Amino acid sequence: MSTDRLIYLPLGGAGEIGMNAYVYGYGTPGKERLIVVDLGVAFPDMDTTPGVDLIFADIAWLNERRNDIEGIFITHAHEDHIGAVAHLWDELGAPIYARAFTAHHARRKMEERGHPERAVNTVSKWPETVKLGPFTVGFVPISHSIPESSGLVIDTPDGRIVHTGDFKIDKTPVVGEPFDEELWKEIAASGVKALVCDSTNVFSEHAGRSEASIGKDIQELIASAPHMVVATTFASNVARLKTIATAADRAGRSICLMGRAMRRMVEASITTGVLDGFPTVVSPEDAANIPRENLLILATGSQGERRAASAQLSNGKFQGMKLKEGDMFLFSSKTIPGNEKGVIRIMNNFSEMGVDVVDDNAGKYHVSGHANRPDIEFMHKLINPQMIIPMHGEHRHLREHAKLANSNGFAAHVCVNGMMLNLSGNQPKVAEYVDTGRRYLDGSTQYGALDGIVRDRLRMALNGHIIVTVILDEEDEPLGDPWCEVMGLAEQGRSHAPLVDILEHDLSQYMGRAGTKTMMDDDALEQGLKKVARQSALSEIGKKPEVTVVISRLS
Amino acid sequence: MSTDRLIYLPLGGAGEIGMNAYVYGYGTPGKERLIVVDLGVAFPDMDTTPGVDLIFADIAWLNERRNDIEGIFITHAHEDHIGAVAHLWDELGAPIYARAFTAHHARRKMEERGHPERAVNTVSKWPETVKLGPFTVGFVPISHSIPESSGLVIDTPDGRIVHTGDFKIDKTPVVGEPFDEELWKEIAASGVKALVCDSTNVFSEHAGRSEASIGKDIQELIASAPHMVVATTFASNVARLKTIATAADRAGRSICLMGRAMRRMVEASITTGVLDGFPTVVSPEDAANIPRENLLILATGSQGERRAASAQLSNGKFQGMKLKEGDMFLFSSKTIPGNEKGVIRIMNNFSEMGVDVVDDNAGKYHVSGHANRPDIEFMHKLINPQMIIPMHGEHRHLREHAKLANSNGFAAHVCVNGMMLNLSGNQPKVAEYVDTGRRYLDGSTQYGALDGIVRDRLRMALNGHIIVTVILDEEDEPLGDPWCEVMGLAEQGRSHAPLVDILEHDLSQYMGRAGTKTMMDDDALEQGLKKVARQSALSEIGKKPEVTVVISRLS
Repeated sequence: MSTDRLIYLPLGGAGEIGMNAYVYGYGTPGKERLIVVDLGVAFPDMDTTPGVDLIFADIAWLNERRNDIEGIFITHAHEDHIGAVAHLWDELGAPIYARAFTAHHARRKMEERGHPERAVNTVSKWPETVKLGPFTVGFVPISHSIPESSGLVIDTPDGRIVHTGDFKIDKTPVVGEPFDEELWKEIAASGVKALVCDSTNVFSEHAGRSEASIGKDIQELIASAPHMVVATTFASNVARLKTIATAADRAGRSICLMGRAMRRMVEASITTGVLDGFPTVVSPEDAANIPRENLLILATGSQGERRAASAQLSNGKFQGMKLKEGDMFLFSSKTIPGNEKGVIRIMNNFSEMGVDVVDDNAGKYHVSGHANRPDIEFMHKLINPQMIIPMHGEHRHLREHAKLANSNGFAAHVCVNGMMLNLSGNQPKVAEYVDTGRRYLDGSTQYGALDGIVRDRLRMALNGHIIVTVILDEEDEPLGDPWCEVMGLAEQGRSHAPLVDILEHDLSQYMGRAGTKTMMDDDALEQGLKKVARQSALSEIGKKPEVTVVISRLS
Repeated sequence: MSTDRLIYLPLGGAGEIGMNAYVYGYGTPGKERLIVVDLGVAFPDMDTTPGVDLIFADIAWLNERRNDIEGIFITHAHEDHIGAVAHLWDELGAPIYARAFTAHHARRKMEERGHPERAVNTVSKWPETVKLGPFTVGFVPISHSIPESSGLVIDTPDGRIVHTGDFKIDKTPVVGEPFDEELWKEIAASGVKALVCDSTNVFSEHAGRSEASIGKDIQELIASAPHMVVATTFASNVARLKTIATAADRAGRSICLMGRAMRRMVEASITTGVLDGFPTVVSPEDAANIPRENLLILATGSQGERRAASAQLSNGKFQGMKLKEGDMFLFSSKTIPGNEKGVIRIMNNFSEMGVDVVDDNAGKYHVSGHANRPDIEFMHKLINPQMIIPMHGEHRHLREHAKLANSNGFAAHVCVNGMMLNLSGNQPKVAEYVDTGRRYLDGSTQYGALDGIVRDRLRMALNGHIIVTVILDEEDEPLGDPWCEVMGLAEQGRSHAPLVDILEHDLSQYMGRAGTKTMMDDDALEQGLKKVARQSALSEIGKKPEVTVVISRLS
């Protein structure tokens, strides 16, 4: 009997929505040959990650096993699936595989980081496959909200795995390949060991709707608008861009793209052949000469991002364009939890200008790119696997998805980041737990989420910062009084005297009281000064700030 | 002809949801006698106000006019209407008027801040009125989501104003007075000059539902739960507490209140006579001895607040109680925009424990306390005023509300914080603009939003903080090298050497190059050192941190 095993290990994306990074392995325990599926990012926020640029899965485990990695497969070009690949590539060094549109984006990212573009291999869709070690991997077109999204069919000595990637069941997706039920049935016919399946919309009870279903409403909305129309959606939702642009074209409007991502995405789609029939676009300069009622702008920033075109337009003039009373602004998008305030800020800015804001209107002008509960169930039955592993979800989504699978008689396992499952038997079994976590990109450096750097930032933001400086001479006697600088603290409090004066007075008194032993001991003196500064601030302004003590000894 | 005028001036609440503070005045321009309606708070967030405890309207204008203030009227006891009254009272000094339940809360707040409780006057409901200067003010019961909410009827020499406060049209509110259509009709019969009206739910198209309408669903849910049930809602929603507690009682469950606000609110409601028939409650200690399936916990923290009972329970044991697999947690509440992440965190924590989380389920287990669009329209027609002034809303709500009023033939005016309207004529007219803004409570101090304190905190959080210390002797020569402390920055970057070493090296080189003129000039030296530190950090870690320079001169 073989001791080889088939393993599944999520390093990101299982217990959160974002930062996808999944590992499959086959071979002798501890020496499996590995493939990585997706290397995406999560986005920072002020609550937990101020000043951070991007968040990656901690790939320390993969790094240790880098010689075992056969390849990195990218299912589609959304940032939460592709965004980390160029940032982490030098640690892994393995070849990257993706379909043409996704590979185009991967190459650009590799180039930007100075990595070889040739590391990115373009793979045609199923039935073409890539054979690497014990794995044979094929990209099967699956409908989602970006061109050329693919589910992976991963054949191993222990059987076939279907890794859905992000998907919905859309037979009229406007751009790209429709969901091909017959093809998936064929793929499943020989038996599937495990379905590793998108969980995002498991709480959405109704059947999902097709991208094509919103075309008519969008067209009517745009046709009936009396003045200029600006619409925003994810730039990567090329089908939506086409739906909106086509509606504008039919209404006799010229189309202008605003925001770098918007222009890039349309260019990439045309270059790689996934988009045709897109109306001619005009530049912002030319748009200025077109009557407003004959113009539609497609703008980036549907999630309220401060630097994107939508936010800029809501703040006033942007690239020579300014919205006016009676113009219309359409959010053809859903606000991702956490982004509400930024989106609402834009809505209110436009309201002040007299611009009429239209949101997704409970689904009239937007559909999701993920399979809803009935569609997930449909996929379960279509693939009819031996076991189901929910992925791409917070814990509550994974748990609900597993319950759904169980209710239809499928074996299922809630598997979170760092939990390695052995899939070789009839049931998924926990093989081991791997240390995982998050890594932050901050400026040009990367560091771990638990390194304390962001914790210190949060503390300074919540508590303010006092810097205490003292100078001691060769005999450990203070040279002058200690003094303070403060940042992020009220200038005065209870005593109606400057806070700095109160602090310096109290610190000076402490120095006068402190014995020779303390004065000779940097640590003791630092602790003493910190304590006094915090107590003094607490009594004066009711806060305990962060305190940095700088002790200088002349020698 | 009299030159007296009737003015309306929102200082908070018009252009945001929260921080309500409205002023009415009557008399000679610039010398009007004034009344204040509500003095509420807004809540801070990490994005804009880290470390801040509460946010108040800037009342500088009122403070200057303090001798003109006749009184402060509080419509109801929600924090965004009453929360600032005790914090700002020493600057205004005017008597406070409220109905019994609201006055009970106001007195507690005054007492906590060391102010005289006798400043708070309890007023009975309409037809009782308070006569102050040119104003006669009555509290008319109106349904909302807290007991004894009132609309104000404000009679002035220029006519009657109806200030709705927060309201919904609920004829079966479970606790407190039903919306009394006949009474409002009677009040409006003699003619109303201005309706100043809640705008919160103007974008909700369907008619609002009564508090009583969700009783049956909540009861069925609780009756069918196999194990322990924990439910959360705003503690001040006493009707909801009663609905849930009654459902639990009927299902043979004991009720336990968790969280200080929950216990306080139930006590205050019973004390002031607004709540009767509430089932007996058990303490958390006693609850531990009751079989889990016979227990229901009412917990604070429906908005995901970290220190409230719900969040604590989701983190593990709280007051001896711990949830288990198969227990149910009910959010009988809607998540306020901006609070999503905290609420989702709780959901996922419970998911990890195997607890089944039920949310408002598209309205099955929660109804709003504000009038929806058709109900706002109904109120317009019921009061049939000369003019309508939308309040209690972001700009988009106020604008939409004004459009709605216009569409039915009413004069209306979008009036935002700081815009003083003259209501004396047939149309509201802008009289002047008053400087307004926000004031922060932080520990025991208050300061202005634009004082730069919070800006500095945000900068430290986003950029990190470098502290540079140099010592110069009597001849302006450096005593030793400059040194650095860093907080919130990566320990090393491009050079793979400690960041602090790189900074100190670059700063030392700068000091060596700097001429005598710079060394003698604190400002020039500080600017020079800052620039070097920032450039050095930029090249090393790709960030430009905040820099504090401490120059010590021995003399």
